[in-house]
Amino acid sequence: MQIAMIQDKIIPAEQLDPAYLDRGTYFGDGVYEVIRSYDGKIFALDEHLARFANSLSAIEITAVDINRIRDRILKAFDAAGIANAKIYFHITRGSAMRDHLFDANLQPNFFLTITPLSDDSKTKTDGIAVSTHPDWRWKRCDIKSLNLLANVLALRDASKKGCAEAILVDDAGLITEGAASAFFAVLGKTLRTTPLTGNILPSITRKFAIVAAKNIGLEIVQQPLTPQQAAKADELFIAVTTKDIVPVVSFDDTPIADGLPGKYTKLLIEEFRSFIR
Amino acid sequence: MQIAMIQDKIIPAEQLDPAYLDRGTYFGDGVYEVIRSYDGKIFALDEHLARFANSLSAIEITAVDINRIRDRILKAFDAAGIANAKIYFHITRGSAMRDHLFDANLQPNFFLTITPLSDDSKTKTDGIAVSTHPDWRWKRCDIKSLNLLANVLALRDASKKGCAEAILVDDAGLITEGAASAFFAVLGKTLRTTPLTGNILPSITRKFAIVAAKNIGLEIVQQPLTPQQAAKADELFIAVTTKDIVPVVSFDDTPIADGLPGKYTKLLIEEFRSFIR
Repeated sequence: MQIAMIQDKIIPAEQLDPAYLDRGTYFGDGVYEVIRSYDGKIFALDEHLARFANSLSAIEITAVDINRIRDRILKAFDAAGIANAKIYFHITRGSAMRDHLFDANLQPNFFLTITPLSDDSKTKTDGIAVSTHPDWRWKRCDIKSLNLLANVLALRDASKKGCAEAILVDDAGLITEGAASAFFAVLGKTLRTTPLTGNILPSITRKFAIVAAKNIGLEIVQQPLTPQQAAKADELFIAVTTKDIVPVVSFDDTPIADGLPGKYTKLLIEEFRSFIR
Repeated sequence: MQIAMIQDKIIPAEQLDPAYLDRGTYFGDGVYEVIRSYDGKIFALDEHLARFANSLSAIEITAVDINRIRDRILKAFDAAGIANAKIYFHITRGSAMRDHLFDANLQPNFFLTITPLSDDSKTKTDGIAVSTHPDWRWKRCDIKSLNLLANVLALRDASKKGCAEAILVDDAGLITEGAASAFFAVLGKTLRTTPLTGNILPSITRKFAIVAAKNIGLEIVQQPLTPQQAAKADELFIAVTTKDIVPVVSFDDTPIADGLPGKYTKLLIEEFRSFIR
């Protein structure tokens, strides 16, 4: 008899809830997005859905109608009634007995949660400390997949060091991005960040941060930094959907400039608000 | 209200079955093993449990008693009553609302399945074709984690080419291992395989294959091969728990030697049987 066991309980395999046979669990065989709302309005939904469609396509999950996903998100957002919400959703390839090879006709599994965002005003005012960690991630970080153990371990390490984000450094000694954010430096009147060719996620917030930087007169240079260069920058910040722009005031225990959020970073936070209205 | 949505169905988040909040799905935050039995006897259980303990430790899942895992496996194996069984099990860090950072006190989730192995005698007699694929995996392949999307995509590519396994090639142009197996070449009277330092899994079957090779008088050289070297080898084979040693007779459409399983490979299949008795 084919059997399954959950903790100490044995059951016939055919009685398993499909949630236990999700290829998302066996292989991380799925892709996800995180979207937020500001004051009852979902931000950059189209951009997130376009990226989601790219991720799905990259791993050959084909039987998904993006308009149906949009409808589900809007319906759930209405039902939740949370003004400043974090909307997480993923699609996995489906549920089946474990086999690396998949049946292309599997029914994909959609899952979503909507939760309130915590107030991040203190983080924005005070800035955060970050620490570096080797970038252990796979080579297809352009795909927003459920293979996130490298990110979890890097953030765990940062947390132990009293830091709020881990900045990932590749084998060449260059910063790629944060474990859960894009990473930026201001050097004089120049904004520096890793180009999209550098095995990073095409971050939506990164794109808006670059537009904001242009709007306030910064020159944009898409070239990766070393940790040594980052520690000596005039300003540092991260960009992430749930918090948009967050100043970084300490890098591997080195204070950035005077250890306070930088003037351009504060201008960028202001400028970002114009996108939200 | 915090809500969740499964396919088209909205439910309050607090009513979610913990299976939907498994960090295994969100992050691949867990580790696994595959063990097999031959004729009612589990093979190399201690070795697999030791590796499982190493994987758990590497990702800081600490609250697991390996002896209890052993007891569960034996109990489930008895209940299944399958003589030639594939025993799959994983432990994830636990179930919680999604957050990269984890509570170290989370209760880990154990999950196991036992299924019959299919007869692989034809595969062993005829050999298999393999094709190469870039090694997109993360940099901690010594940990047997649930982050397996790179493996899934490589095997999907192999399958489209009519091949049974994908042989992964790293950025330096060197073969690491198969997407779901260890990889070996026989060159004259030498057995060549990637050293454990080469970001590969410390495969149990690889270890037994090396012992078997010594027993039949082959010299062991742990150095990676290029695809060009592999295509010109006298013999190739893969090693994997569920099938032990399987001859490779075609490599990226190039027949290996005369296109039939090699003499040393056949001797190794015989020698491996002595470990099982």
